Amino acid sequence: MTEQHLDVAKLQRRLAEFAAARNWQPFHTPKNLVAALSVEASELVEIFQWLTPEESARVMEDPETAHRVTDEVADVLAYLLQLCEVLGVDPLAALNAKIDRNEHRFPAP
Amino acid sequence: MTEQHLDVAKLQRRLAEFAAARNWQPFHTPKNLVAALSVEASELVEIFQWLTPEESARVMEDPETAHRVTDEVADVLAYLLQLCEVLGVDPLAALNAKIDRNEHRFPAP
Amino acid sequence: MTEQHLDVAKLQRRLAEFAAARNWQPFHTPKNLVAALSVEASELVEIFQWLTPEESARVMEDPETAHRVTDEVADVLAYLLQLCEVLGVDPLAALNAKIDRNEHRFPAP
Amino acid sequence: MTEQHLDVAKLQRRLAEFAAARNWQPFHTPKNLVAALSVEASELVEIFQWLTPEESARVMEDPETAHRVTDEVADVLAYLLQLCEVLGVDPLAALNAKIDRNEHRFPAP
Repeated sequence: MTEQHLDVAKLQRRLAEFAAARNWQPFHTPKNLVAALSVEASELVEIFQWLTPEESARVMEDPETAHRVTDEVADVLAYLLQLCEVLGVDPLAALNAKIDRNEHRFPAP
Repeated sequence: MTEQHLDVAKLQRRLAEFAAARNWQPFHTPKNLVAALSVEASELVEIFQWLTPEESARVMEDPETAHRVTDEVADVLAYLLQLCEVLGVDPLAALNAKIDRNEHRFPAP
Repeated sequence: MTEQHLDVAKLQRRLAEFAAARNWQPFHTPKNLVAALSVEASELVEIFQWLTPEESARVMEDPETAHRVTDEVADVLAYLLQLCEVLGVDPLAALNAKIDRNEHRFPAP
Repeated sequence: MTEQHLDVAKLQRRLAEFAAARNWQPFHTPKNLVAALSVEASELVEIFQWLTPEESARVMEDPETAHRVTDEVADVLAYLLQLCEVLGVDPLAALNAKIDRNEHRFPAP
């Protein structure tokens, strides 16, 4: 799979096929997927919890930490996309609409 | 903005311009962004916390709850994309590589 | 109720009577209580998410924020004690034993 | 230390001495402690994330899982008490006051 063709829909298909091949769909209720999403988000927090703001800005300079961060980002995105799949939510359209609303809620100075 | 042209890079640009126009970049350290990401993930959990698995599967049938879920999905994605932007992480490539690794870690039966 | 007699067991009884009077016990599965606990912990994080370390140390100087922090601390403790009640865990003994173990894991210099 | 004398104040002293002996106080800003609290709460969620409500109610029957749950309860309480210490919040009084308020907000039927 060449990366220039990666998009959200393709990743959602890969994730769905992965779960189906392992019979994991019964576990993938929306309630369980949001729990898993929040657990993965906390694993990202764990990497940063004792760092100063300045140290947190340099976190990608250490290859091992950079790999760990990238891995947790992938896990958060994986559960977010699987959640969207089971709920029938389009995440990119949802975010685009939210930015539209925020432009009204928080007018630029 | 027509939705058929939405992609992750375009949303990241909108988010970066939105933050820059409000001078929010100093707040957007990786440490703060992961905290905000985990808070938004928990706001999704809050919607589901007292539901049975069966109720959680029908959550989009109520228009008000469906809107709330979609809104929180947008918030999670917003902070995930802003985090990736400040860290220089490509979230789709990260997820694709993670699925590759998981296919080795969890072979399909 | 005078506060000098407050202890964990008394608060657990108040919480159990409160839930029973409202027929909330069916919702209080361990799975739901840990979700609620994590949501309340995130509401604490939300108060601090954009603060510098220095600002976070002065958070109790503002009466309104101090009240909000105290309120969220109460919510975290409420769900932790209710979880311990349904699981039959003694939280103070658990922590005491954990400190004992940590004294071996992390010897003081 | 005999457990019949355990109370919150004694555990807070043990935790403060433990942190002081290792020079960990500079890391224990309120902002960092709430992050650590939320991470430990999520480690509890992780134990339950794929369980049905019924399985979650039987989680203490397996000794290894029971130990893991008890250990994470201890971690959540440890960070909550350390947070209260640095903020000057009395957690038991905070919870007692919160139950008082909730009795007005949610009158029993």
